[in-house]
Amino acid sequence: MLFNNIEIKENERVDDLHRNGYSIIQNTDSFCFGCDAVLLSGFAKAKKGEKVMDLGTGTGVIPILMEAKSNAASFTAIEIQKDIADMAFRSVKINNLQNKINILNKDIKNICEDFKAASFDVVTSNPPYMNNGGGFVSSSNPKAVSRHEILCSLDDVAKGASWLLKFGGRFYMVHRPNRLADIICSLRKYSLEPKHIRLVQPYADKEPNIVLIEALKNGKPFLKILPNLIMYNPDGSYTDEVKSIYYE
Amino acid sequence: MLFNNIEIKENERVDDLHRNGYSIIQNTDSFCFGCDAVLLSGFAKAKKGEKVMDLGTGTGVIPILMEAKSNAASFTAIEIQKDIADMAFRSVKINNLQNKINILNKDIKNICEDFKAASFDVVTSNPPYMNNGGGFVSSSNPKAVSRHEILCSLDDVAKGASWLLKFGGRFYMVHRPNRLADIICSLRKYSLEPKHIRLVQPYADKEPNIVLIEALKNGKPFLKILPNLIMYNPDGSYTDEVKSIYYE
Repeated sequence: MLFNNIEIKENERVDDLHRNGYSIIQNTDSFCFGCDAVLLSGFAKAKKGEKVMDLGTGTGVIPILMEAKSNAASFTAIEIQKDIADMAFRSVKINNLQNKINILNKDIKNICEDFKAASFDVVTSNPPYMNNGGGFVSSSNPKAVSRHEILCSLDDVAKGASWLLKFGGRFYMVHRPNRLADIICSLRKYSLEPKHIRLVQPYADKEPNIVLIEALKNGKPFLKILPNLIMYNPDGSYTDEVKSIYYE
Repeated sequence: MLFNNIEIKENERVDDLHRNGYSIIQNTDSFCFGCDAVLLSGFAKAKKGEKVMDLGTGTGVIPILMEAKSNAASFTAIEIQKDIADMAFRSVKINNLQNKINILNKDIKNICEDFKAASFDVVTSNPPYMNNGGGFVSSSNPKAVSRHEILCSLDDVAKGASWLLKFGGRFYMVHRPNRLADIICSLRKYSLEPKHIRLVQPYADKEPNIVLIEALKNGKPFLKILPNLIMYNPDGSYTDEVKSIYYE
């Protein structure tokens, strides 16, 4: 099947991103992006002319949404899984963004060889959340690779982000609150100082299940915890703030 | 002046704690406890028969309130400032708790010499919040000593708590959210794993300004962030949950 002259493979579908008329290809067998990625694209800020890197981009949803919302100069995004990197590359072509977004099939663990140090202003990442604690999870299952720290750990992500960022550059990550102690320790280990944290909770009376973090390369310690973001109204509809992140 | 046959000095007053008929002596010139201490006494849990230590007890409000709420075996509390330790000791006497609460004029930095390792089940602390960053603040001003890390740092508190706690013992601390990265790194440095965090915000739409933390000695990493506690209703009255911490 073709969409805007781009090949759409079996088990793939094309979804509307509700931004600039952009679309994205997803594969229900391997990996679809979740609200986490959309929330990160709303939390992360790229200023005019800045160079942005997304680590472990999956479908490419984060650079595509951020391109729609910012005046950044360019986006680079790496993805270790070849088929998924190819799918993200076709999504970039569907939206005719080849001049702005560069999808590369690369491994976070080779960042120091593949990219120059201090060559980006902003790094984003929606990494795998689950620490296996040594348990075996198959590296040939794309869903498992995107969810479990099989091919990259939190430390790999922090180390890579720190290598790529200029002095004062910003790292934006979405993760799970139950990993917050690991996250803060990994960031500090690589000179990324947590500066803003925003917790996201499904309903007003529930505990948070998502955390958004901004860390500054070589920043001074002083953390601001922002008011929590609430996803849903009591009737199950999106709150106004979440609607504005998705649709405005 | 005398109260229950106990001397009350100049600039001191006796306040009702609204618990078991207990009272407390405070000195408006040196130091009064804040809502932070009351919130910590509600967050910290001491089980029947447990031995509890409070580090930097100030007025002694935390062990006195926790004695009223728990069946712990005993409370020990250290305070480096002699006059304030004496005031806390007189508060213990006013409430006739000399058999349950032991106030000692000791320095957190000497804990390893003054106490046996692994001799407590629970440690609590409402330490100084402000990191001076090398700036000079007078150590002869009691208010300054209780607010700034002049005589003890966050690392001293974490190190002391870790020394005192048994394997699996619980450390409860109240602090400022802007120090959360420092807190988590200090705790982990001394084998205290953050297990529960509760942020406290003044109003429903404001950012949190207090953080309550429970860490487990030698615990495994898995942090639960609880729903935020909100102090005030929109009309400025205490919320029901805060009322229950203060008065029930």
